[in-house]
Amino acid sequence: MLRIATIGTSMITSDFIEVVNESADAVFVGTLSRNAERAASFTSERGGTLPFSDLGELAASDAVDAVYIGSPNALHAEQALACIAGGKHVMVEKPLGANEREAKAVLDAARDAGVVALEAMRPVHDPAFWAVRDALGELGRIRRADLRFGKYSSRYDEILAGRQTNIFDCRMASGALMDIGVYCVEALIALFGKPDAITCTPVLLDEDTRELTAGALDGAGTIVARYPHMSATLSYAKITNDNLPCQIEGEEATLSFAGVSVPMQARIDYRGRALRGAAKEVRPAEGAHSRELELPGCANTMAYELADFVAAVEAVRAGADLLDAAAGPFGTVGYFRDVTLTSIALMDEARRQAGIVFPADAR
Amino acid sequence: MLRIATIGTSMITSDFIEVVNESADAVFVGTLSRNAERAASFTSERGGTLPFSDLGELAASDAVDAVYIGSPNALHAEQALACIAGGKHVMVEKPLGANEREAKAVLDAARDAGVVALEAMRPVHDPAFWAVRDALGELGRIRRADLRFGKYSSRYDEILAGRQTNIFDCRMASGALMDIGVYCVEALIALFGKPDAITCTPVLLDEDTRELTAGALDGAGTIVARYPHMSATLSYAKITNDNLPCQIEGEEATLSFAGVSVPMQARIDYRGRALRGAAKEVRPAEGAHSRELELPGCANTMAYELADFVAAVEAVRAGADLLDAAAGPFGTVGYFRDVTLTSIALMDEARRQAGIVFPADAR
Repeated sequence: MLRIATIGTSMITSDFIEVVNESADAVFVGTLSRNAERAASFTSERGGTLPFSDLGELAASDAVDAVYIGSPNALHAEQALACIAGGKHVMVEKPLGANEREAKAVLDAARDAGVVALEAMRPVHDPAFWAVRDALGELGRIRRADLRFGKYSSRYDEILAGRQTNIFDCRMASGALMDIGVYCVEALIALFGKPDAITCTPVLLDEDTRELTAGALDGAGTIVARYPHMSATLSYAKITNDNLPCQIEGEEATLSFAGVSVPMQARIDYRGRALRGAAKEVRPAEGAHSRELELPGCANTMAYELADFVAAVEAVRAGADLLDAAAGPFGTVGYFRDVTLTSIALMDEARRQAGIVFPADAR
Repeated sequence: MLRIATIGTSMITSDFIEVVNESADAVFVGTLSRNAERAASFTSERGGTLPFSDLGELAASDAVDAVYIGSPNALHAEQALACIAGGKHVMVEKPLGANEREAKAVLDAARDAGVVALEAMRPVHDPAFWAVRDALGELGRIRRADLRFGKYSSRYDEILAGRQTNIFDCRMASGALMDIGVYCVEALIALFGKPDAITCTPVLLDEDTRELTAGALDGAGTIVARYPHMSATLSYAKITNDNLPCQIEGEEATLSFAGVSVPMQARIDYRGRALRGAAKEVRPAEGAHSRELELPGCANTMAYELADFVAAVEAVRAGADLLDAAAGPFGTVGYFRDVTLTSIALMDEARRQAGIVFPADAR
């Protein structure tokens, strides 16, 4: 049984506590909030018994085995390091740190302390994602991938109204790439590994919002990743709605699926044999056909990352070497560490090209 | 009445002759082919009376007012210049030249000779395309555009079988960008003007095909174009099938349409008012709704470019200044000249980044 406390009182934290409460292997202890009353009410409303209002107290608590950190991005590393120093396993919302240096500090500290540090990156713990990956072999040589996630954020309304919001704030290490592009990046790394090179073209928020956002920050962006025989385009946006599915094009077939964070509605279109065509019509093919993939579904896919986190902790408790410990069916702690570090390093380079600098980068 | 001869005996040339034969304002005279028998049969089968087997003879013919050039890309400029020197108006298949220098030579020669030179770029003469453009005002601030055209080419089977084909041959100034990406590029320029900067990430054909293709050549590619407050992604492929529609994302609504070369099935999804959501569900919105656009349709959209070409010639015959002559309802000869030159200059830069060099570039 894993006794889990949480940091943060956001909706995502509520969603995580929901899957903890549904799990037979974990129990929700309580939530940390600087506001003691808020901590108490948030905790009791969700079945917890022990609210916290001080990080040191949480980190030192004997009643807690692990901490889920759902605070603003810029706080992830510092809070994770404090919890790790207190011997706690940590599950950290994406992105695990504001930059590679922070992420590495957290992951190295966890390794040295012998505790599990796992990034809460839903797709890479979701069997639907790996079912999509397993189908890639049917596409022939893969030549291009489009991974996309664009959803207009109600927080952009705040910016337009001239009000600060953590979701668009360099001090919080947020913005479109960090908050939503990260799903595309980590899916890319999990599917295709580290690219040879990237280009990042951001759509920056207007210059007259720079004071609100504490510097240049992206509302949307496009990263093109180059591989030896293919390329991938990552499109992310928080100021528009992107209604297209993800798509992976092979020479023999093209696969599409909706929702890079929660893969669903996957299908493969086999091209058949190409025939010579003419300008006025869609070029015909012989033997083209389609197939829907059966994907496992789940009302709240945070259940998967929780299960993998619990499994990793249990493996470590049972004596497994930390990095070799299986974090569920899809990878070891070391594998997910690599996905996280490679992804955040890619995002560092993307931000460098985009001219997006966080205060955390200077520390 | 415009008396039109054609160069080339490809399917696209057949399609063009079809619309000439359906037009009340133009008549098909005959086709040029080096093979005299082929010229004669191709001409007579399509209702023509005067086949040609020599370019100089065609250029000098008193029986011809205008020439449609549907030959391989690398031949466009030289043939167009010969026809212009003979006082002929020319309609040149896309891309009008192998590079900006060639295109400018053709367009300048036409200007100096007082004849019309128009690129056969279907979408920019298609009322459906301009209906899409007219709807962009409904999207709010436009932040991103995805223009795409990817269709597996039967000619790639030739390359895979180790056989030369004009469609993938640097000597022919072909490949994915030149043959199919050009539609995305010209649509981009017509919709949004010249970008501030681009990045091009090609998917090159395998190194062991370089002898067949006479150098590095692209089977697919991605161009990201940067504008002050938006970006656009152009995706083109001849070695995979891209099944996604084009999409243009504004802050208020997102427009999609299928077929960048022949726009159809356009719809606008208005996002409504964004509400705060949670991780496990698609974020809800209030008042979201959709609207299908009514687009004019046409069995063979080459009819539009032909009509614009005929209109331009008639305007010039009636005394209009060449560059100010209306080439149909959507622009002057000068406007389409600019779209062509800006587009081909962009493609030159894309090829420079991609490392794709044509023999035509050295001339």
